[in-house]
Order: sequence, then C-alpha cells, then structure tokens
Amino acid sequence: MTQLPTNPAHEVRLRCRTSILRTTTSGLAPGHIQANLLILPSAAASHFRSLCARNPVPCPLLGSTPLTAIGNPKLLDDASLITTPDFDIRTDLPLYNIYRDGRLVGQKRDVCEEWTDDHVAFLIGCSFSFEAALERAGLAPRHWETGGNVPMYKTRRRLNPAGIFTDSYYVVSMRPYRPEDIERVRDVTRPFEGMHGEPIAWGWDGMRELGIENVGRPEFGERVHIREGEVPVFWVSAFEIC
Amino acid sequence: MTQLPTNPAHEVRLRCRTSILRTTTSGLAPGHIQANLLILPSAAASHFRSLCARNPVPCPLLGSTPLTAIGNPKLLDDASLITTPDFDIRTDLPLYNIYRDGRLVGQKRDVCEEWTDDHVAFLIGCSFSFEAALERAGLAPRHWETGGNVPMYKTRRRLNPAGIFTDSYYVVSMRPYRPEDIERVRDVTRPFEGMHGEPIAWGWDGMRELGIENVGRPEFGERVHIREGEVPVFWVSAFEIC
Repeated sequence: MTQLPTNPAHEVRLRCRTSILRTTTSGLAPGHIQANLLILPSAAASHFRSLCARNPVPCPLLGSTPLTAIGNPKLLDDASLITTPDFDIRTDLPLYNIYRDGRLVGQKRDVCEEWTDDHVAFLIGCSFSFEAALERAGLAPRHWETGGNVPMYKTRRRLNPAGIFTDSYYVVSMRPYRPEDIERVRDVTRPFEGMHGEPIAWGWDGMRELGIENVGRPEFGERVHIREGEVPVFWVSAFEIC
Repeated sequence: MTQLPTNPAHEVRLRCRTSILRTTTSGLAPGHIQANLLILPSAAASHFRSLCARNPVPCPLLGSTPLTAIGNPKLLDDASLITTPDFDIRTDLPLYNIYRDGRLVGQKRDVCEEWTDDHVAFLIGCSFSFEAALERAGLAPRHWETGGNVPMYKTRRRLNPAGIFTDSYYVVSMRPYRPEDIERVRDVTRPFEGMHGEPIAWGWDGMRELGIENVGRPEFGERVHIREGEVPVFWVSAFEIC
C-alpha cells in the first residue's frame, strides 16, 4: 500500500475541519507560516486594512478573503502574501472566539452559522515562526522549557488610528535574555517581517515605558522565570481594540 | 518665439540646482509629490529601510537611490514609488543640513563635496500634499491664514526600533479644528497614505498622551491661534532619531 504525499499544513486544516484537532497549533506543520484570524463585517474591512497598513508591526496582514467577492470563505485576495489551496476559513481552525459588541460571547469549533455573505476574514502574522529560529540559534525562549504559552501583556502604546479603529493598543510577548545576547536575539528575529520582527523594547526601563508594571502578572499566557542577570525582552504579539 | 512645455517639478529642481531657489518648496509644483531627503552611509541603509517598513506613518519611504548601485546620485531604485527623470540628489534641493555624529554642523546649497560613492539617499513622504486637499474641502489649515510654517512638536511616542535605530520618536504637526469637523478632516487626509495619512491624535487628552505640554510652544514652525471651541489635531510630521 502506497502512502500519498501529504501537505502537513493541509493535514492540520483537515484535522481542524473534522474537529479532531482541538488544541493550539503551536509547533504544528513546521516550515509553514501560521496566522491569526479576524473576521469582520464588510463595512469595517477597509478601515481594518488601513489599520494594518499603518501598523505593520502589531498587524502584519498576510492576506484576506477577497474584497471583490465578499462573503466567499474559500478564496484569498490576489494581494495576499500567502497562498493556501483547499481551505474553508469557517472550519479550518481549532477554535473560534465569537465577539458581539466587543464582548466575548462564546467559543465554537466552527463559525458556519455565524458567517454571512457580508463577512471578510483577515489573516495576521504570528510569532510562532521566529521562535524556532531562536531555538536554532541556541536562544530557545524560556517558555519552551516549561511547555507553557509565552507570557503576554497589554501596554499603553497605541496603534496609529485608522478609520473606526481609533483606540487600539500594542500587546507584547516577553522572553527573558541576558543583556549580552540581546543584539543576537534582535538579529535573529529581524528578518521575520510579517511576523512582528525584532523586539520593540528590552530591559526594565523598556518595560516601564510600555506601561507594564509587574512582569510576573501577564494578562495572557503563563509567567516565566527571569533568572538573575537576565532582563525581559518584548516583542509585539498582537493588538487590543478598545 | 515658442516656449517649450515644461514640467513644473523639473523647473523647481533646476532652480535649486542653479541656486536660484533658496526658500522652502511648500506650494511649488502643485499636483506633484514633494519629499524629504535623508542621505546615509551604506552601512546604515538596510537598517533605515527596516525602520521605514516598520513605521510607515512617520517614515513613508517613497524611494531611494539604488542599493545595487550605491553612490549613484542620479538614479532611483526600481522599488521606488516615484519616478523622477533628470535629477541629481546632491544639488536639486534648495538647502541641505549637514550632520556629523548626530549634530547639525552646517547648511549648504549642495552636497557635492560631502557625497561619496558610499552614500544612499532616501526620499520620505511629506504632508504638504494633503494640506491642499484640506483647503479644497473648506478646511484650510490655520497656518495658511498667517503664511507661517505649521507648528511641530516632539513627542514621547517611540517608533518601532529597527537595527541601529533603537531610539527614535514621532514628531507631529498641529492644525486646530472644531470637534464636529474632526471626522471630515480624518476622511480627507486618510487617503494620503505615503504622506502620513490621517491624524494620530486629537483633543487635549490626545495632546497630553503624546507628551506635549504646551501647544503654544512648538519645537519647529510657528505657533498658531486655537480659537474658542477648537481643539488641536495632530498629524505625524516626521521623526527624531536620538
């Protein structure tokens, strides 16, 4: 019996579609780009594109469903930086958060019921990719040792406003390093432009300037141990729309 | 005697080249894009490109002399968003500031002596263009009434660091408007993406959040009168590298 060659990214999508995969996708399909998903009504779509164009570090837009075929959940816009055959944006992720009026109202395995012919889906770059590069450079992030999720913090740094998105803030992830390793850490992550790239702040002063008061109390993910002589290094991880 | 058709932008360049034009270019060659100029040694060029890519609002990169032909002052890179025939970056601006070790050490009508075969020139978008659009919409900026330069302020908002550029800050320009006009003002300037686009902050709280304490004391340009009922509206104007 011969095994057909499979695309590991397609495998992951199929396992989500059939609800076999129900956990985070971190570490899956290595070598492929992972993305975050945001689905919006079409009236907000051009504003969100503008937000991405004005804030490529927190909002690295990798692609979207077509603005010329709004409501099609199985096509990507020509301008997208990624190509993905055979996908359905409503089913191919392990879990969807459903928001109404800015409030999380539920979580579902698919959004087939919620998706309408007025929706546009946006794919935003994600930092899972550069962590493997740090590991290859002998600079594996601390949370890889414990197996938890990277600690993340809301900041008081604002995104440049765009249209209806006037009130959004940087969310950062933190990985501790020794000061003498920071330049190397910056060099390793700089090329990952569509995935937040190099850190935006480091050291205790950098932390305070972002408005983070307690590095031991992340808003998301799990706290990690900062060893003596190490300082926190902050990458942009996401953004929060208020 | 017949007059040959002339390109007004080319005319301006020639008048700079021959040192006839010695003033600001604001308002000249309407309909053409104006740009700010920054010339760097090639070792800093890729870092500066990265700074622009990570900060398109303060650093809208319109073009540069070619990285494949470093030191050529008469060609633009293929990736440039503007095309300009017959120019010499060393002579075609009215006045050049010369910096050494980050300090302004002089001003010259051309930089033919300073330019070496290791230099790269960058052209950065400028907000002169959107002011005409505001005027057409019946929202002429206040400083047009007095004929002065727009008031500009250093802020405490940082650019996302890139390579050697770790410590740079937004510089903003201010135009006062009534609160009920702000949405229209935002709409009019939003399309000017390569020229800083829509404002980044407005109102007195917005001002304080940028770290501006006294709107009557601009760091650059001239102060303008804010009438009763008006609030300051801030556009990104430039950046300061510390």
